[in-house]
Amino acid sequence: MFREKIKVLDCTIRDGGLINNHDFDDRFVRATYKALSEASVDYMEIGYKNSKKLFSEKEFGKWKFCDDDEIRKIIDGIESKTKISVMVDVGRVDVDDVVPKSESPVDMIRVASYVKEIDKAIFLVNHFADKGYETTVNIMAISRALDNETNEALHQLEEESKVQVVYIVDSFGALYQETIEFLVKKFKSILKTKEVGMHAHNNQQLGFSNTIEAIIHNANFMDATVYGIGRGAGNCPLELLIGFLKNPKFDIRPILDLISKEFVPLRDKIEWGYLIPYAITGMFNEHPRSAIALRQTDKKENYREFYDKVAAVDNV
Amino acid sequence: MFREKIKVLDCTIRDGGLINNHDFDDRFVRATYKALSEASVDYMEIGYKNSKKLFSEKEFGKWKFCDDDEIRKIIDGIESKTKISVMVDVGRVDVDDVVPKSESPVDMIRVASYVKEIDKAIFLVNHFADKGYETTVNIMAISRALDNETNEALHQLEEESKVQVVYIVDSFGALYQETIEFLVKKFKSILKTKEVGMHAHNNQQLGFSNTIEAIIHNANFMDATVYGIGRGAGNCPLELLIGFLKNPKFDIRPILDLISKEFVPLRDKIEWGYLIPYAITGMFNEHPRSAIALRQTDKKENYREFYDKVAAVDNV
Repeated sequence: MFREKIKVLDCTIRDGGLINNHDFDDRFVRATYKALSEASVDYMEIGYKNSKKLFSEKEFGKWKFCDDDEIRKIIDGIESKTKISVMVDVGRVDVDDVVPKSESPVDMIRVASYVKEIDKAIFLVNHFADKGYETTVNIMAISRALDNETNEALHQLEEESKVQVVYIVDSFGALYQETIEFLVKKFKSILKTKEVGMHAHNNQQLGFSNTIEAIIHNANFMDATVYGIGRGAGNCPLELLIGFLKNPKFDIRPILDLISKEFVPLRDKIEWGYLIPYAITGMFNEHPRSAIALRQTDKKENYREFYDKVAAVDNV
Repeated sequence: MFREKIKVLDCTIRDGGLINNHDFDDRFVRATYKALSEASVDYMEIGYKNSKKLFSEKEFGKWKFCDDDEIRKIIDGIESKTKISVMVDVGRVDVDDVVPKSESPVDMIRVASYVKEIDKAIFLVNHFADKGYETTVNIMAISRALDNETNEALHQLEEESKVQVVYIVDSFGALYQETIEFLVKKFKSILKTKEVGMHAHNNQQLGFSNTIEAIIHNANFMDATVYGIGRGAGNCPLELLIGFLKNPKFDIRPILDLISKEFVPLRDKIEWGYLIPYAITGMFNEHPRSAIALRQTDKKENYREFYDKVAAVDNV
């Protein structure tokens, strides 16, 4: 029997935007929105709401800023029950850019935060909640967080914030299922009035299985991306998650069409997915930036040397 | 703390041989054996011991037959503690081809069997055990087996056979971690004097996580292949498994070199790994043969049509 509370959030355009400077064209984004809508995916995260005072529109595509009018161009005329989400990073958003929910096509604002920034994240979610939005806090790099500090952050979120969902984010693709179980149980035990979410990376081909593991232990918000697109090794593949979930409302076939028509050709142009350097940073619980940099060089297949370098950094 | 009883069996050449008619050249197989030896992998499965009365040497490469002299050409002169394994299929082996262990470079013979053929498998393993070999029975297509028939086969293996290890083989890449837990616990509870092994396929990117799941529940024999090579979606990637295991004897670096030098170029010539048609057959708990056939046609990226076909077969 399916669990109706499980919600699927597709962050294809937002997380995928990290590999192309958020520069997907409108036709592509509309095709994605249409397919997600037909598949009955619950949320589509379309990008970041970053301050234009901090980032240049010349350097980045429109999905780094997510103006409401640009979002309207994507969704207008497409029948859909899929809600729109945008992400903000602590310290990179101008809250005055965010109009009340009643005037915006955006339904949900997700605040990405490290454990140590949790006070700032709580300020932001409370502000956005007061403006009428659904909200989440996504705790990044959880595999590097100290247990006592995580506990304190979760207590603050439970007691001081209006947030609806708190996500476990395995930013480095470092976690195995035993730690996912440990974390989901911890989050659930402290966050008695919130839902728990899972955002997994695929460095060690564990994105999907860690998402299943979170479902098993009663997390209800699941992130995924079409064909696993995303920075570095990418994310939990949406098609696998939809294939797994039992809720009859989901239809995998529009997603399969989208992959055939858009994502297989795109993968020939930009790189993501399982590659050995990303597996190595995952094994060492490191940010993938060194692996991403390696892939831009002529040493991109020189795995032993890269492994030894990451191992040396890890031992400092 | 590591569990010394965990053994890693690499079946790169055997399972990879299913995509090139077992036609790896000696240089490639020696390079693989050397790297596995340096990495301290416990076993290398080099191919099938099939009867030449049933299969033609003109049609298939030497690793479909695994003559002892051919194996000697590979291992001679390489310092190694890695044992050599060959696989036999029930009904495709001529037992008279197998000389006593004392005269052979082979250490282990693995018998691949469906549940319904278990009596034949028991005859074979007892015969090979009497000749001095280590033995396993690998129960294929376990995701299609009826529970009562599996139970009976396991009781027979425990009571009537000399086999040392019984493998769970998720031939179709259909299983999630909850079923792996269920099966390993069942196998362990009936096979009180045997070890349990796991051979996972990667159709849904669950090969590695299902292998971890089996380890968590005390299976001790783990199959993997270099860079996940194997028929269709391939297998649990050896490099990820070695990265996960804590036993200090293992060294991932020779495997990384082998991937850089041999397997990245090979992947440009022959196809394996995560591709949507294999994910679809995995979701439907179907043999991947229809997906393999599709990949040879000009409709190879026509995923929706393929999905609908598999779904229709499944509903007959």
